[in-house]
Amino acid sequence: MNIPADMYAAVVKSPKKLQIEKIPVPLPGPDEVLIKVESCAVCSTDLSLISTPAPGQQEFGRFIPGHEYSGTIAAKGECVDEIEIGDRVAVEVHKGCGRCANCRKGLYTCCLNWGNLKRGHRANGMTTSGGFAQYAVNHISTVYKIPDSVSFDEGSLITNAGCVLYGFEISGGYFVGDQVAVIGDGPLGLISVQIAKTLGADTVYMIGLDNYKMDIAKELGADIIIDVKKDDPVKLLKTSFNLGVDFAVEASGSEAGIRTALKIPKWAGKVLLLGIPAGEVTADLKEFARGNKYLFTVRGEGLTNCGKAVSLLKNKKLSLESLITHRFRLEDLNKALEVHNSAEIKSIKVVVNPS
Amino acid sequence: MNIPADMYAAVVKSPKKLQIEKIPVPLPGPDEVLIKVESCAVCSTDLSLISTPAPGQQEFGRFIPGHEYSGTIAAKGECVDEIEIGDRVAVEVHKGCGRCANCRKGLYTCCLNWGNLKRGHRANGMTTSGGFAQYAVNHISTVYKIPDSVSFDEGSLITNAGCVLYGFEISGGYFVGDQVAVIGDGPLGLISVQIAKTLGADTVYMIGLDNYKMDIAKELGADIIIDVKKDDPVKLLKTSFNLGVDFAVEASGSEAGIRTALKIPKWAGKVLLLGIPAGEVTADLKEFARGNKYLFTVRGEGLTNCGKAVSLLKNKKLSLESLITHRFRLEDLNKALEVHNSAEIKSIKVVVNPS
Amino acid sequence: MNIPADMYAAVVKSPKKLQIEKIPVPLPGPDEVLIKVESCAVCSTDLSLISTPAPGQQEFGRFIPGHEYSGTIAAKGECVDEIEIGDRVAVEVHKGCGRCANCRKGLYTCCLNWGNLKRGHRANGMTTSGGFAQYAVNHISTVYKIPDSVSFDEGSLITNAGCVLYGFEISGGYFVGDQVAVIGDGPLGLISVQIAKTLGADTVYMIGLDNYKMDIAKELGADIIIDVKKDDPVKLLKTSFNLGVDFAVEASGSEAGIRTALKIPKWAGKVLLLGIPAGEVTADLKEFARGNKYLFTVRGEGLTNCGKAVSLLKNKKLSLESLITHRFRLEDLNKALEVHNSAEIKSIKVVVNPS
Amino acid sequence: MNIPADMYAAVVKSPKKLQIEKIPVPLPGPDEVLIKVESCAVCSTDLSLISTPAPGQQEFGRFIPGHEYSGTIAAKGECVDEIEIGDRVAVEVHKGCGRCANCRKGLYTCCLNWGNLKRGHRANGMTTSGGFAQYAVNHISTVYKIPDSVSFDEGSLITNAGCVLYGFEISGGYFVGDQVAVIGDGPLGLISVQIAKTLGADTVYMIGLDNYKMDIAKELGADIIIDVKKDDPVKLLKTSFNLGVDFAVEASGSEAGIRTALKIPKWAGKVLLLGIPAGEVTADLKEFARGNKYLFTVRGEGLTNCGKAVSLLKNKKLSLESLITHRFRLEDLNKALEVHNSAEIKSIKVVVNPS
Repeated sequence: MNIPADMYAAVVKSPKKLQIEKIPVPLPGPDEVLIKVESCAVCSTDLSLISTPAPGQQEFGRFIPGHEYSGTIAAKGECVDEIEIGDRVAVEVHKGCGRCANCRKGLYTCCLNWGNLKRGHRANGMTTSGGFAQYAVNHISTVYKIPDSVSFDEGSLITNAGCVLYGFEISGGYFVGDQVAVIGDGPLGLISVQIAKTLGADTVYMIGLDNYKMDIAKELGADIIIDVKKDDPVKLLKTSFNLGVDFAVEASGSEAGIRTALKIPKWAGKVLLLGIPAGEVTADLKEFARGNKYLFTVRGEGLTNCGKAVSLLKNKKLSLESLITHRFRLEDLNKALEVHNSAEIKSIKVVVNPS
Repeated sequence: MNIPADMYAAVVKSPKKLQIEKIPVPLPGPDEVLIKVESCAVCSTDLSLISTPAPGQQEFGRFIPGHEYSGTIAAKGECVDEIEIGDRVAVEVHKGCGRCANCRKGLYTCCLNWGNLKRGHRANGMTTSGGFAQYAVNHISTVYKIPDSVSFDEGSLITNAGCVLYGFEISGGYFVGDQVAVIGDGPLGLISVQIAKTLGADTVYMIGLDNYKMDIAKELGADIIIDVKKDDPVKLLKTSFNLGVDFAVEASGSEAGIRTALKIPKWAGKVLLLGIPAGEVTADLKEFARGNKYLFTVRGEGLTNCGKAVSLLKNKKLSLESLITHRFRLEDLNKALEVHNSAEIKSIKVVVNPS
Repeated sequence: MNIPADMYAAVVKSPKKLQIEKIPVPLPGPDEVLIKVESCAVCSTDLSLISTPAPGQQEFGRFIPGHEYSGTIAAKGECVDEIEIGDRVAVEVHKGCGRCANCRKGLYTCCLNWGNLKRGHRANGMTTSGGFAQYAVNHISTVYKIPDSVSFDEGSLITNAGCVLYGFEISGGYFVGDQVAVIGDGPLGLISVQIAKTLGADTVYMIGLDNYKMDIAKELGADIIIDVKKDDPVKLLKTSFNLGVDFAVEASGSEAGIRTALKIPKWAGKVLLLGIPAGEVTADLKEFARGNKYLFTVRGEGLTNCGKAVSLLKNKKLSLESLITHRFRLEDLNKALEVHNSAEIKSIKVVVNPS
Repeated sequence: MNIPADMYAAVVKSPKKLQIEKIPVPLPGPDEVLIKVESCAVCSTDLSLISTPAPGQQEFGRFIPGHEYSGTIAAKGECVDEIEIGDRVAVEVHKGCGRCANCRKGLYTCCLNWGNLKRGHRANGMTTSGGFAQYAVNHISTVYKIPDSVSFDEGSLITNAGCVLYGFEISGGYFVGDQVAVIGDGPLGLISVQIAKTLGADTVYMIGLDNYKMDIAKELGADIIIDVKKDDPVKLLKTSFNLGVDFAVEASGSEAGIRTALKIPKWAGKVLLLGIPAGEVTADLKEFARGNKYLFTVRGEGLTNCGKAVSLLKNKKLSLESLITHRFRLEDLNKALEVHNSAEIKSIKVVVNPS
């Protein structure tokens, strides 16, 4: 594959200032690959990182955001023989250090050497350069082949599906016959609906706000839609002091959503937080604690669940196409971010195609 | 519902001697229901219990076998208000004592007071009377409502599906993206193929012997059929000393099947024994132990998985109809057992309709 | 054993009005035993139930509180042969219905038929009569033999130890080499210190408030005492954005304690709530969710952990004597409750000896 | 620290031919340390590797065996800052590739790139040079600091303790109040006795053969000794068809031991294989499968359990000194191997001190 010396990339120059620049194409190290990026999806985390750096983040002036992407292998390091140039791939974000107590237990998204390049950690689009560029470098452990039946745009959403799958896995992984309530009609909520059905849930409730998205939830398998503009999900689902759903998946990140999620499970039920709240939350922990309930949270898309998401896509057990509402070219990234961030423009996932 | 004083039932008079007799319809206790049996499936365990009593088994002369059945609620005890007369139901076998260390941990199929009626254990069709009769008594904890979309004959196979689900649950429960090999093309094997696909396995291998059954496996979702008459599954699946499948489900009960099952997983892979071998087995435990592999076994259909099986049937995630190859009337039970046991007659599940 | 017709018992006549009355000695049912109560410990839940009835609670006028007790078997029902008259026993609170989805999975403290006597649930001292009486009836599943080396007063604290053990078990059960912080120097906190050490924790921190109790924590094995009057545990333990303890056990029930507990674990660390907060709590769930942390709660002393607590006492791996600070006669129960509730009088566990 | 250019090391020149040679001291890579080896214990695996190479093993002519060792940090690579020169350390064997599906789930001892140096795997004393030398190189992820209270000889046994702990962890990790039977009085059996007691087992049975070792088991905490020369452990422990121990730990590797281990658990009980059998084993899998039992095996000392073993040693919850029966100098390694292998000479662990 012919690789140019330079490429266009979106560099954060200062808080909230993102600029498309011409910079040298990076070189992969011995265990790394160079990916020609075909699609990179916008995530709310991007907006956060662009405005306020997180611990361990690559410094402004050099930082290229974008952690949900897919593309084609353009080059590879001398120790990479699992993959060939030209292979179509999707990525996951986290390459753990491999030496801390968490990484060695498989918790690479929770690496205790986060941001420490010297010790081997990297999280593309966070602590190192990411995918809002024509080329990106990835460690081989963060690359998954995708079949031709999976489009690059779908491929860029694989981290989302991997995150949901990881959450379901650490919440027990077995939901056959369960009552599952999904709160939030954004991308993680809509994927959660599908995953819950795929894993054999009996009834999946979508607790949403936006008609357009709730319609998609219905198409993707939600059995019952609860529109919070009209109905109180707690009244509908918490039918007695000890009854309720088996599993509540919170994907809105809102305080109201979290309050609901903690209330609606039955005794010994489970809650999974996929959405990240903005800060402190006030919630009824008395009833939660008395109810022997469990609260799980996820950091990223661990335990190789991006690969599992590829398998579900391949087997038509998961569909991500209907979540992609907007597409932009790399030079229009700032516009893409605006659309993602807009309350007026109805978007679910916005992708950018740098090639 | 009009309940007669007497009913026909199949009573084991002495080893291998099963006789249809007219006996009084039993009365349910306070926590029990009387079921008008519509369908009762034959299981190899029935043949074993009819010839050689197991520990705790009801004595010959009184013993009515049959533990896989469905029917209609005909009467109920004074403490039963979860269910109504006329409701269509399927059953599970095991009602644990509720007081031993296993029952209190949810392991009611492994009740440590097995066969001890005084302490509250009962296993219908094993330690108490079962379903090869026009009426049967069940504790309310062993009864599951089935919707109209599930036929009684399918209902009688719910213990089979519950057993497979229980096995998958205790083997970890989460198989998304996994390579799963199912050994044995009998009913448990064919259900395992479906469950593996339902739970998101990447590739499901059916390792079988009988062309007719392997064809059904294909229809039910098996990705790759390995015919042991032609190919060696170990050569095909054990591609290196540390590679192989993620999960091997042994459903044949044969020594050859078990030897294969223990060999084909990759390092840290899992094996589930659904088939019960006839006795001692010689197998390579050296490679198994060096490979950090796990072996799970199941006793019955625990952890409420019969209810979960009903949910999958309702949601069209599981199909049992194609497994039912033969139907008989109660008076022809001995013939039904012959068909089940015959090597010449190709049967998968044989059901008896007493009503 | 000679059983009198009448006994003294503490009956709640109306909110906060507890009266010692002479009433008939209750009779055990077929699966039940009659216990001559030797010791019954006061729990904060008693105070709550005496003032405001919980769902399913026995009605005022008849309600005898007390759920932490021990004594001697005085009589037994016809189906009880696991235990003999004269045996020394401790009890656990919860006898699940045995037929709901939770009970059949072993979650009997979270019975979905809570308070439904007809369906077989009973929680002594909550939904049925308890141990602040000379005699009490228990289902055989809630009775554990105690050796002579365990005093009755220690025996009355076994539900406390069972609760802590259950919490540790559902939080993963394996804490070898871990950094464990226990928040709260009350009985559950002091037992947690011991259990953490017993299970092989590397370093156990006691985060406490009361000098007398922190001294006992030290004696019971706490490695490091953090006095919240002097030091901020978050500053000491949360040494970086992703570092902290492996496991935080919250046993104070205070909002400050819960806020600390949610903050101090490292990424992928765990929190166990043993203390029940008074209602809503405001806490930083953003950092909690980003940290891939887990929150576990317990309802009672499930999975037979009261029996496991007896084993630890027998093997001298646990000591409860030093937690018993006050003893009263049954007629002085109101005084016992006052001492328990007093901020001035330093008490840990107050026990009442009815015999 | 002054590091010489050359060192003495034990090199396998050809099958069973081990020779002490003077060779260059190896250099650590960027993420590696150089350890001045103080103690390296003999393991039966060494004898196997010296006579018949395992897959991925370093070639004869260059292979330096020895995977259980401890020593002092003599030098370190440029990316190592967690440890200082002069620190006392023990090692674990396995450094996974970090990129295969197993490593990324934390199963680094089961690396699917085993023996593939290019992809980053190394297992010291197996696929790369080990500790029967004056110096050895280790990846930083395989090094644990040990306090002064732990001797180097004890340090060399940490992989043994890590292996037992890993086995207990993957077998559920929670054994409070359990009946645990340990089969085999060798080092892994004797450590298992201690770990079982440390984790709160109710009763620990040592099923042994050698009086000297059974005496040590008693000292280390075994409650009941079953001498297979006199008694049949199955008769003693398998008291009914469904009763038996909660957990059987097989540490002998013998067919008789494995047959016993599979028989003695109660229904739903567990078996852990720590000993590796010589090849095929014939055992009663019928009763095992009917009993809903589980069989776990371990490959090495995963999930950072070597670090957990150090913690137990530090906290005096584990003692390894009494297992060290023989000490040799490096030049007497062949004699050390003879003693280890001898049926006449009673040894438990034989260590070699190269410095």
